[in-house]
Amino acid sequence: MTLDEADRLDAADPLASARERFCLPDGVIYLDGNSLGALPKSAPSALATTAERQWGADLIASWNKNRWIDWPVEIAAKLARIVGARPNELLIADSTSVCLFKLLAAAVRARPGRRTILSHRANFPTDLYVAQGLADMLAVEVKAVAPDEVLDAIDGDTAVVSLTHVDYRSASIYDMRAINEAAHEAGALTVWDLSHSAGAVELDLGGSGCDLAVGCGYKYLTGGPGAPAFIYVAERLQDELANPLQGWMGHAEPFAFVDDYRPASGMLKFLTGTPSVLSLAALDAGITTFDGISMSDIEAKSRKLSQLFVDEVEARSGNEVRLASPRDPTQRGSHVVFAHPEGYAVMQALIARGVIGDFRAPDLMRFGFTPLYTRYVDVVGAAEILAEILASREWDQPRFKARAKVT
Amino acid sequence: MTLDEADRLDAADPLASARERFCLPDGVIYLDGNSLGALPKSAPSALATTAERQWGADLIASWNKNRWIDWPVEIAAKLARIVGARPNELLIADSTSVCLFKLLAAAVRARPGRRTILSHRANFPTDLYVAQGLADMLAVEVKAVAPDEVLDAIDGDTAVVSLTHVDYRSASIYDMRAINEAAHEAGALTVWDLSHSAGAVELDLGGSGCDLAVGCGYKYLTGGPGAPAFIYVAERLQDELANPLQGWMGHAEPFAFVDDYRPASGMLKFLTGTPSVLSLAALDAGITTFDGISMSDIEAKSRKLSQLFVDEVEARSGNEVRLASPRDPTQRGSHVVFAHPEGYAVMQALIARGVIGDFRAPDLMRFGFTPLYTRYVDVVGAAEILAEILASREWDQPRFKARAKVT
Repeated sequence: MTLDEADRLDAADPLASARERFCLPDGVIYLDGNSLGALPKSAPSALATTAERQWGADLIASWNKNRWIDWPVEIAAKLARIVGARPNELLIADSTSVCLFKLLAAAVRARPGRRTILSHRANFPTDLYVAQGLADMLAVEVKAVAPDEVLDAIDGDTAVVSLTHVDYRSASIYDMRAINEAAHEAGALTVWDLSHSAGAVELDLGGSGCDLAVGCGYKYLTGGPGAPAFIYVAERLQDELANPLQGWMGHAEPFAFVDDYRPASGMLKFLTGTPSVLSLAALDAGITTFDGISMSDIEAKSRKLSQLFVDEVEARSGNEVRLASPRDPTQRGSHVVFAHPEGYAVMQALIARGVIGDFRAPDLMRFGFTPLYTRYVDVVGAAEILAEILASREWDQPRFKARAKVT
Repeated sequence: MTLDEADRLDAADPLASARERFCLPDGVIYLDGNSLGALPKSAPSALATTAERQWGADLIASWNKNRWIDWPVEIAAKLARIVGARPNELLIADSTSVCLFKLLAAAVRARPGRRTILSHRANFPTDLYVAQGLADMLAVEVKAVAPDEVLDAIDGDTAVVSLTHVDYRSASIYDMRAINEAAHEAGALTVWDLSHSAGAVELDLGGSGCDLAVGCGYKYLTGGPGAPAFIYVAERLQDELANPLQGWMGHAEPFAFVDDYRPASGMLKFLTGTPSVLSLAALDAGITTFDGISMSDIEAKSRKLSQLFVDEVEARSGNEVRLASPRDPTQRGSHVVFAHPEGYAVMQALIARGVIGDFRAPDLMRFGFTPLYTRYVDVVGAAEILAEILASREWDQPRFKARAKVT
């Protein structure tokens, strides 16, 4: 496909105007929204209002007057449509890792006698680390099997199955419904990490039988670097489960200042400390970029973008790189991974040319497509520049091989 | 004291110019910096730079280029002088409650066989709730005694003593050195909550033998609503203690993406999830307001302000209110509490007149003095307005008695 042809696809794209909701630097093809979403145009003014008018002028009164106290549930409610849950099943809090700890602990303790947290090898590291830390505390075990062995590994000793819905490396998707059904049949619970799904893939947490989930606010939800995470607990489980990180904000009466913990009802019990108001303001701006846009349109565009990238890269550079994501677009999230023995250097050469993706060890170049702001011309342009870099061996320079602290 | 006399004290105050570092609304006497510190003038531009230039333009490259990855330790290092610790003993992370969980869990697990987390009744609620939640998980017990019985209650079954240095209600101060010595003699560890101390009281965590501490970023440190907290771990304990909330950011090699957790050395292991970059930018602005100002000057002014308030309130309204803080200013933090049977309504009447303090059940009116921006005229003015409200029974109106959600 030529850039002109891609341009025509953009002109016909029903989501094209959503790109106007974001600040994107000139001359950059940003294909790393799966790691850090772009800045929503409304975020700086949301931050300024929150800081200057609310914090600065209204001061402590803002907790009531500007309803800061309600933001963790109010902003979560706006996420309901995006992740396919009910508003009262969601909460914004902490980081993804801390939220995972809360839900894994709650799940393990709701299944006493069962000794296994089941996950898979090469799951996103923090998911495994959190589970390992929790297992040490609760004297249970993390059983990490091969990704395709999870279904068969669910048994009567499984307390909880902890999986990432869209794999952070390959973008391969687990069949939520199948895993949930198998887990429930065995009497286990499921915790889904939706970090690479939320905002890019059409989800139906309720309809597919999900018990619990967490997700990242700073990827496709464009909530800003280190944005708070979200927690999902199916309504049917909210009474049964307990938050192990008991803090005053999850108390039934936080401002009664009594000595004994009594959990709030519903999702509020999953709060712990004081919500990070400035971060919530930015996350709200991010979630607002989805206003008026259907998740089925987002998923459809995501698949078109990623498939176009696979096709264009393979047409131009098929001998140089190897697709390391599922070939079937319905089996992928919204990013695509190509392997190359010098993937790190190739990615640095791409970045130097303004095509921003990222690298995951040992040899994977990761390219993410955010339907709200990625254009078809970006996809074709990136494939062209990658082909040039590979053909010319432009990547073969010491400056592209020196590893940065964060990759 | 008259307002003119107070004005002369302000003119002679070596810290007077620090007030220029803050935005404070006209016509307001803000005596609630112990709950939410005022907005530093540099915070909005720090947020704008972080959002627009770093997030918006530099995008994912900011983790390296703008050193976001190092902010939790770099900003913590600036706090070292303020809390009397070494730079390598501090870290910024999560919320105070989550940080408390980390350190209490680490402490209990470092003292196997001991069954007690010792605290006191009426400690700040989240401190008790976090301990109760942890105790449930680890099958230990929280022993909450009367505040003045803590020293005697430390025994061979005490794993950790968990206290708030400056009481959030009365402002009474624990003798850190005495508690630390008694704990160490019994083989126990100490975790101090410095939320109402940091930035207002001169601290020497190392010299007084503190093992572990946490503190709030949004009170005297003026880091913004729900700012991240700080963690202190004495260098001598850093190798021994483990973070129970194991996340990728606390891994020795977070970007190696390996399956097994291996803790980073030093304080970094106490990180869990991705740092909240926007919140860190605001906290950095808050900590920077202490530049060039000695903590001994801050503590000295704190005592003068709070004592002046006690004197002026008692001179005008001694029959109406009862001092519920220690009378000796060296035994108090930087706030003062007066009890009144209708304390809630009196405080609302004060707020309606522009004097902002807060209320703590059952009958306590709390007034906080932030040495960097509270003036002597504020103190005298607040005492005058309080006296008028009490004399006129201006507080005796239904609109001042309706309880807000957040008090």
